[in-house]
Parts: sequence; structure tokens; C-alpha cells
Amino acid sequence: MSVSSREERILGIIETARAKRPRFKDAAITMAHGAGGKATQTLIEGLLAPAFGMTEFDDAAAAGDVLVTTDSFVVKPLRFPGGSIGELAVNGTVNDLAVAGARPLAITVAMILEEGLDAGVLRAEVEAIAQAAREAQVEVVAGDTKVVERGHADGMYLTTTGVGRPDPRARLGALRPGDRILLSGGIGEHGTAIMLARGEFELEAAVESDTRSLWPTVDALLDAAGPALRAMRDATRGGVASVLNELARAHRVAMVVRERSVPVDPVVAGAAEILGIDPMYVANEGKLVAFVGPEKADEALAAMRAIDERAAEIGEVKTEPQGMVLVETSFGGRRVMDQLVGDPLPRIC
Amino acid sequence: MSVSSREERILGIIETARAKRPRFKDAAITMAHGAGGKATQTLIEGLLAPAFGMTEFDDAAAAGDVLVTTDSFVVKPLRFPGGSIGELAVNGTVNDLAVAGARPLAITVAMILEEGLDAGVLRAEVEAIAQAAREAQVEVVAGDTKVVERGHADGMYLTTTGVGRPDPRARLGALRPGDRILLSGGIGEHGTAIMLARGEFELEAAVESDTRSLWPTVDALLDAAGPALRAMRDATRGGVASVLNELARAHRVAMVVRERSVPVDPVVAGAAEILGIDPMYVANEGKLVAFVGPEKADEALAAMRAIDERAAEIGEVKTEPQGMVLVETSFGGRRVMDQLVGDPLPRIC
Repeated sequence: MSVSSREERILGIIETARAKRPRFKDAAITMAHGAGGKATQTLIEGLLAPAFGMTEFDDAAAAGDVLVTTDSFVVKPLRFPGGSIGELAVNGTVNDLAVAGARPLAITVAMILEEGLDAGVLRAEVEAIAQAAREAQVEVVAGDTKVVERGHADGMYLTTTGVGRPDPRARLGALRPGDRILLSGGIGEHGTAIMLARGEFELEAAVESDTRSLWPTVDALLDAAGPALRAMRDATRGGVASVLNELARAHRVAMVVRERSVPVDPVVAGAAEILGIDPMYVANEGKLVAFVGPEKADEALAAMRAIDERAAEIGEVKTEPQGMVLVETSFGGRRVMDQLVGDPLPRIC
Repeated sequence: MSVSSREERILGIIETARAKRPRFKDAAITMAHGAGGKATQTLIEGLLAPAFGMTEFDDAAAAGDVLVTTDSFVVKPLRFPGGSIGELAVNGTVNDLAVAGARPLAITVAMILEEGLDAGVLRAEVEAIAQAAREAQVEVVAGDTKVVERGHADGMYLTTTGVGRPDPRARLGALRPGDRILLSGGIGEHGTAIMLARGEFELEAAVESDTRSLWPTVDALLDAAGPALRAMRDATRGGVASVLNELARAHRVAMVVRERSVPVDPVVAGAAEILGIDPMYVANEGKLVAFVGPEKADEALAAMRAIDERAAEIGEVKTEPQGMVLVETSFGGRRVMDQLVGDPLPRIC
């Protein structure tokens, strides 16, 4: 099948889908509703957003003069190579602010603790939160603790909310055909590290979570690209593929990604192959995707490379097929990189 | 034993305790750490606050130009007479802002859902959140959903974070001897309603949770008392007794409460007696304690009574015994109303 007839078929599907708002029709919650893919989107767009009068269930939203964002963390195990739930809870929330163009100022921390939780484990996570907050230069300003009976949680669940100040350099807006797609470093490390840490697979590979604050990268991008910086997303649950699909749909554009340009550590690639997962769908906790107008793409990439030399330009925004992400394979073919279905990697954040 | 010799003994205990900062020495988390009493305070003051560089683990704190506050909700059952977890999650957070003197503007909602949760149950809580937010005039601006495996949560746990704007009329500050202690209505209704809803007791009593937004009461108090309004607290976990103890310690004052002035619905009083609990320790979700200078106490009480006719002046701030709350019983005696120990009413919010 030629590329064009394939794209025509895709366009037909898209035309049909475009008019429909997803409806939440499931009878019960499944793990897939938490995976960041199609089921999560249906839950959000079909139930939560309309009930709360939002156009989308935003990652970060204005409240008064600040931006706020919130995330719960239910990762298991609580500690894994390269990080822990406490560090993740700080960086994940800081990063949602950063990619919305807001300088992170403060976070709140709400803990749901399991009765019987070892005090040493709690102390370690409290210290991890404090340390990550210092590194990200945010203050922990308020908190809450609740306790549930033994067996009704897994050690601890954390929810952090971040408050940030919109950066005046940020002029984020609509994606335009021709915008370049930049990636801040190698993908799939966090999700791979978690899966290996669980010991469910007979794999001995040294992969560490990439959890970190993305504010320094955002700060550098804002300096380098200014108003040519159209949008940013941290590629967490559902990975880079989910971010691209979400934005293609929201901005009614297409995207073409060059597979060979996407930086993947060979160890991550090997682990993903054995696990049967495309690394593009594996979670990151310290990588962002940036969309930059072509006139500033080189400067933006140079700024990102000064922080992580594996940063790369991986593709381009196109007009058609609207709402779709296409991958150019290393062999010159094209395939659709669809939304994630199901939850291949549960509880990774 | 005469009142004076008793107070002397109390003063001796207090002198010893005053110098000590509580230390968190427990080997593991117990239900008491979530009850809002002594164990919670030790966890907060002994571990969390020092790690996060706070003087206390604040209910609401400044971040930029706004106040933020966060709370997790793990109440069971999810629905109970007079309310549900969704309604509680909105009002509880709105009330933390209100008593800090901030007009609630916006909230975020993070949901941890249990795999297998019935979609109808979820829909009902989403609607409860939306309805409570409309009534409290706050916008739901951002959110998150995570899913944990069946059995790793009880249907849903919610965490809400509120953003509010400090009200210019609020001049909250230190309590002073002579300040009057006002209560906005009858106590113990929420905790009693939850306990009865669990069906653990052979009691048929019609008690509804008092969950509601306290902003209208705060608004009226700010108008009536202005700078004479020293402090407010919503009397949730641990009830009125915990609020008074916390403030007596924090402000290094004493408090005397007239037991006969405290409004308690006879049904609540009866249930509490059968459950073996002093209603002063039972949770409320729509009642606040206000401390008002004597020159404005009558106006403040009148303003509160216009909203709930059971509002009452229940006592006064004193100098000694510092950090202590004393109750004048209906028979003219005095006893210490101590901090809550253990968790007589688990998972009520």
C-alpha cells in the first residue's frame, strides 16, 4: 500500500472521529483509566471536564495571578534506581508548572499513609521530598497527613500541588505547520527502571529513572526561543507517543516523527523489546517535548543540548492528517503512532 | 482537691513540657497519626515541619500573592447522611482557606481510584464535587486521576488543594487574654453521622453531617469584627477540643470553656454518650471557632447567629496555665480538656 492511499484511509477515519466528543460509557474503573492513554482521555473528556465546566482537565491552570497543578503518586515500589516516590512527587508537579511556562514557587504535600508503615521508610521519603524541593528551588508550604488501615494503601500515596508564576518570556500558543518537534533527551528510562525494579522480568539491566526538575531546561528554552516556543509537555505516563497524540488532537494538526532521530539508550531499547513495549509509550520523569517555530529551532536545540547532549529534533508539525501522529521508520515507511490502549506499565508514577 | 492546687500541679507539668519540642520516635505509623490529636502533632512537629523548614505544617500558607491549602480525604463510607466524600473534599479545603482569612477562588482535585470502582459511584462523586464547588463559588481548575489495583484503596481517595485571595479585612494575629471564644453552631454532627452510617453501633439516630462552606460565616465575621477578629479554625478531625489545644499551645495562652454554653444537639450528645466519646472531640465539617476581642464579641456573635442561631460564646482566653484548655463543668468544677490520644473515630474525613 502506498503512503498516500494509507493516509487517505486514515483521513477517512479521522473525519468520522473528529465530530465526536468521547463519551465515558464504561461500567467500572480499570487500570487503563490511570494509564494516560485512550481510557484516561475518555474519563477526563467524557466525564470530569464537562462536570467541572472545563474544556480539558488541565495539567496546570490559572487561579488568581498564579498557575496551579496537582498530581497524585502511587508508584510501586516506593524506591527504585534513580529515585523514589517523594522525589517523583516534587519533580512531577514542578515539571507540570515548568512546561506550562510558569516558574515553580511552592508546593503542598498531602500524604495518605498505610497503618504499619515503617517510620524509617517515611523518614526517607520526607527527606527525599525536602531534598528534591531544595534542588528545584520550591518551598514546601503546606501539607496534610491521613492514615488508612493496613492493606488499604501501599505504604504511602502522595499528592502534590504546585504553585507557579507565569514567566513573562513565555508566549505559548497554537502549534503551526512547520514547527519543529524537539526532545530534551533519551526516552523511556523512568518506566524501564520501575519495571526492572519490580523484578517481574528476568532482566539485569542498569537503568535509572530520569526524575529531575525540568525548570532549567524550560528556562533555557524561553531564553533561546522566546515567542517562537509554542508549547511544551513533559512526557510522563504514556510517554512521548501520548504527548504527541494529545497535542495533535487538541491543536488539530498532524505530526511526523523520524524514528531514527529519537534518542533511546540501547539498554532501554533492549529492555523495551523484551517487554514487548515501544519505548515511545514508556514513561519519562525528566524529559520534555518542545514545539518551536522553524526560525528558532536551531537555537532552541542548542540550548537544550547544553543541558543534555542527547537532546534532538525528532520531527515536524504538519497540516494533515489532522489529529494524527505518523512515524517515519528507519526503512523509509510510515506508520500511525496511535494513542495508548490498556495499561502495559501500571503504577509507574 | 481544690481548683488552685490542681492548677498548680498542671502548671508544674506544663513548665516541664514547655521547653520540649515533640520528637517523632514511633517505629511505625498507627491510625492515631491520622486522628488530628497528639500523635498527629508529634508526626508534624517532630518530623515533617523540621524537614520542610516550616515552623508548623500549616493548614494554609502563602505562595506568591495567594494562600494555598491541601487535604486528602479517605472517609468511609463514601456516602453518609448529609454528604459524601466529594462534597467533603470541596468544603474541607474551602474552609481551610476561609478560616485563614482568604476568599476561596479555585480548587484542584486529584483522585486515586480503585480498580473496579463502579462508574455510577464515580459519577455521583464527580457531580457532588461540581455541585459543592458551585455552592462555594470556587472553580475546579485542574486535576489528576490515578488508578490502583483492586483492594489497594477503598473506592476512591481524594485530595483537593485550594487557592484563595487574602481578604483585606482580615487582620488575624496573636490571641490575647480576654478574647472571647465563639462557636458557629452545634458540634459533633459530622463524626456522629459517619459512625452511625457505618452501622457498627446499634443506634437509630437521625444525625446528618454538617458539611458546608464556611466562607459566608467568615465573611460575616470579618464585616462585624474587623481587626478584633484574632483567629479562626474549622473544628474538623479531633473536634473543638483539638482546635483549642492547638491554639493554646501555639499562642502560649490558656483557655477556659464553659461546658454548658457549648451547643450540642441532644441526639449527638446521646450518641456520643453511648459511643463513650466527649462530643468536644468529635469532628465537624461546617463549624468554626472564632477568637474575638471583647470590644467586638457581641457584634461578632450576632453576625454568626444570623447564619446559625445556635452560634454561642463558649469561653475566654486567659494567661495561665499557659498552653492549657480548662473546662468549667455545669457543676462549677474545672477539669483539663487535654489533647486527643489515639483514634476513637478513624477515617471520618
